[in-house]
Amino acid sequence: MPSISNKGNSMPQSPIRKLVPYAENAKKNGVKVYHLNIGQPDIKTPQVALDAVKNNDIEVLSYARSEGSEVYRNKLANYYANNNIHVSANDIVVTTGGSEALLFTIGSITDPGDEIIIPEPFYANYNGFSIASGVKVVPVISSIDSNFALPKIEDFEKLITANTKAILICNPGNPTGYLYSKEEIEKLKQIVLKHDLFLIADEVYREFVYDGATHNSVMKVDGLEQNAIMIDSVSKRYSMCGARIGCIVSKNQYFIKTAIKFAQARLSPPTYALLASEAALDTPQSYFDNVTKEYVERRNTLISELKKIDGVKVAEPKGAFYCVAELPVENTDDFAQWILEKFNYNNETVMVAPASGFYSTPGEGKNQVRIAYVLNKEDLIKSVTILKHALAAYNQ
Amino acid sequence: MPSISNKGNSMPQSPIRKLVPYAENAKKNGVKVYHLNIGQPDIKTPQVALDAVKNNDIEVLSYARSEGSEVYRNKLANYYANNNIHVSANDIVVTTGGSEALLFTIGSITDPGDEIIIPEPFYANYNGFSIASGVKVVPVISSIDSNFALPKIEDFEKLITANTKAILICNPGNPTGYLYSKEEIEKLKQIVLKHDLFLIADEVYREFVYDGATHNSVMKVDGLEQNAIMIDSVSKRYSMCGARIGCIVSKNQYFIKTAIKFAQARLSPPTYALLASEAALDTPQSYFDNVTKEYVERRNTLISELKKIDGVKVAEPKGAFYCVAELPVENTDDFAQWILEKFNYNNETVMVAPASGFYSTPGEGKNQVRIAYVLNKEDLIKSVTILKHALAAYNQ
Ligand SMILES: Cc1ncc(COP(=O)(O)O)c(C=O)c1O
Ligand SMILES: Cc1ncc(COP(=O)(O)O)c(C=O)c1O
Repeated sequence: MPSISNKGNSMPQSPIRKLVPYAENAKKNGVKVYHLNIGQPDIKTPQVALDAVKNNDIEVLSYARSEGSEVYRNKLANYYANNNIHVSANDIVVTTGGSEALLFTIGSITDPGDEIIIPEPFYANYNGFSIASGVKVVPVISSIDSNFALPKIEDFEKLITANTKAILICNPGNPTGYLYSKEEIEKLKQIVLKHDLFLIADEVYREFVYDGATHNSVMKVDGLEQNAIMIDSVSKRYSMCGARIGCIVSKNQYFIKTAIKFAQARLSPPTYALLASEAALDTPQSYFDNVTKEYVERRNTLISELKKIDGVKVAEPKGAFYCVAELPVENTDDFAQWILEKFNYNNETVMVAPASGFYSTPGEGKNQVRIAYVLNKEDLIKSVTILKHALAAYNQ
Repeated sequence: MPSISNKGNSMPQSPIRKLVPYAENAKKNGVKVYHLNIGQPDIKTPQVALDAVKNNDIEVLSYARSEGSEVYRNKLANYYANNNIHVSANDIVVTTGGSEALLFTIGSITDPGDEIIIPEPFYANYNGFSIASGVKVVPVISSIDSNFALPKIEDFEKLITANTKAILICNPGNPTGYLYSKEEIEKLKQIVLKHDLFLIADEVYREFVYDGATHNSVMKVDGLEQNAIMIDSVSKRYSMCGARIGCIVSKNQYFIKTAIKFAQARLSPPTYALLASEAALDTPQSYFDNVTKEYVERRNTLISELKKIDGVKVAEPKGAFYCVAELPVENTDDFAQWILEKFNYNNETVMVAPASGFYSTPGEGKNQVRIAYVLNKEDLIKSVTILKHALAAYNQ
C-alpha cells in the first residue's frame, strides 16, 4: 500500500473533533448538550446579505475573478477606510475564507523548513496551515495571569533564527479574547523591522471589540507597510461562516502579486458567497451595535458566573467571543470527555474546548479550556451551572 | 523588505493571464474578442440547482461539515453507483472545487522533494498545486500524432525514483480531450502496483465523453482500491464553475482520513454551493443528453473547420471540451498576443491558449494551442475563420 506523507501524518486532529462522538452519543441518550466549544455564532446573518443570494439572477454560475472582482475589492477598500485603514483595491486579494488567506500567506512567504513565531495559546488551525506548507510553528508563551498580553519582546528575540520568516498574531485573539494595545503593536513593529520579518495579523474578529476600546490594526502603523499582512474574513463579522469569503490585505505589492498566483491556481472564490459578501457591506450600523451589545452582555454574564465557581480562574476578554478559563482539574481533555460521557445535570451537559489544542508547547494549558459565548445569556447561565456541578462531581 | 518564498517566486503565471491585458485592450478599441481560451462553459446551470439556492431559507449562514454532510456524500455515492462506480459516503471528502481536491491529495501523499509523474501536456494548475506543496512535477511526453494517447509504460518506468509518490492523469484530458482506454488504465494499474504508487485520476470531465465511448474510471479497477484516488468536481458537469464544490474519492481509508485533516483545518466547503450541488444531483438525464449533443456538434464543427486551414494539425478529442491544435507558426505565445494586439478581421478577433503553459518540459508545445469549444457553433465558425485569416496575415 502506498504511504501517506509525513506532512499528512503530522496534521493535527483537533481535540474538539475527538469529543464529537461523545457529544453525539450523549444526544442519542437524550441528554441536551450546550455547545461552548464552537466558533460558529448563533447571530442572524444580515438580511441584506441573505436577500442578495435569494434574489440573484444567475443563469450560468461562472468562475469569479481569482483575486476578487474590482468592484468588490473597491467596496472593501471603502469599508476599511471607514475603519481608518487606508488601502486600495490593489492591496486586496479575496480568498475562500480567512483560512485560505492564511494558507496563501504562509505559502507566499515561507519555504519548507522556515519558521513562524506565534504567541500561544493560538488558533489551532495555524498548525494545520503551517504543516501543509512544511513550516515550523515556534510558540512563545503568553500567560493567563496577564490576560494573555503580548509576551516580552526579549522572548521573541530569543526565538528568532535565520529561518524565521514572520510573527503571526491574532487580534483580538482566539482563544484568548485579548486585544493588543498600540504599544504592543509598536513593539512588534520594531522587532519585525529589525529582523526583516513579516508581521501577519489575523484580524477576523476586528469588529468584536468591547468597552470602548479601539482596535489597533497592523495596517494602521506607519513604516510597517512592507511588512504588515492582514488576514480578514466575513465569517464572524456578518455571522456568515458558511459563505467562505475572506481576504489578504497588504501594501507589499510583491507579496500581493505572489498571493494572487496562489489564488489563480485555485481559479475562483465561491460566486454565491461573493454576492452575499458584497451585499453585506451595506449592513446598517445598528446591526453591529446590537451584536456588540449582545456579546458584551454575554461576556459579562459568562465571566461573572464563571468567577463564582471555586478554583476557576478566567482571563478577561476584551474582544472576539471566547475566553480561556483555568479549571481545578489536571487534564481538561479528560474532563471534557467525562462531562459528555459520564455526566449530566437534569439531563443536560456542556461541551467545552480543551485548551491543549491551542498550545504548541507540549504539556501547556492542560488545565485550561476555551469557552465561546455564542449562546444566549440564559443558556450561558445554565451551562455554567452545569459546569459547576460537573467540576464538583469530577473532583469528588 | 522581507522576502517572498522561493515557492512563491516559482509559482507559474499562466500564459493565458499574460494575454488578458491585450484582450482587454482590444475590447477597449471596439474589437470583439471570441474566447477560445477558457474552461468556463456557456451552458446554462441546471434550473434545479439554481432554484435550490434562490429558495433557500438560511437565517444563519453556518459552517458546513468539513468533509461534507453525510446526506450529500450518500447522494454522491448513489450518483457514482449509477455510473458503475461503487463507493460509500466514507470514501468521499467534499472539497472547495476539484482544485482543493488536488491540493489536499498532493498534501496527503507527498512531502517536499517528492515527485509526481504526469503525462504532458497537462492542466497547468497541477504545477501550482505541486509547487505549493514543494513537490516536483516529472513530465512524460505524449504526442499529438497519437491524439495524446498514454505514453509507453517504459517511458514512465524510466522516470520512477525513490521519491516518486504518484502518477497523475486527467481523463478525459484537459487540454487534450483524450480518453484513456481500458487497456491504458490497466497498464497504469500494473505500474503503480509494482512501485507502490498512488494513481490519481482527475475525472472532472467524466460526463463529457462522446461517440458512445465508455469512461474508464480508476475507481472501477479491481485490485487498485488502495492506490486509486479520483478527483471530481461539479464545475463542468453542471456548468457551475462558480459553486466551488468538488470531491476526493478513494477506498484507501488511511488516505481519506488524512485528507479529512486537511479539510478540517480549512473548516468548511461553501454552504450555498453545497445546496446547489446537492440539488444538482436531481438534474434530469435530458439535460446531459442535450449538453452532450451540443458539445459533439461543436466539436465536429470546430475540428472540420480547423482541418480546412493549411498547415493546421488537430488531435481528435473524444471527451472534455478542448482540443490541441498545431499551428503553422513558431511560437504560439507570440502569435496569441499578436492576434489580440495587432490583428482583427471585420473588427473581430480571437483569444486562444498557447500550449506552452500545458507543458513542463521547456520548449515543448511551442507551436500548439488549446482551443475550447465552449462557444456556440456559429461563433466557433466565425472564430476559426478569423484564425485562418490571422495565420495568413501573420505568416506573410
Ligand atoms: C482566529 C481565526 N482565524 C481564522 C479563522 C478562519 O475563519 P474563516 O476561514 O471562516 O474565515 C477563524 C475561524 O474560527 C479564527 O478563529
Ligand atoms: C482538468 C481540470 N482539473 C481540475 C479543474 C479544477 O476545477 P474546479 O476547481 O473548478 O473544480 C479544472 C478546471 O478547469 C480542470 O480543467
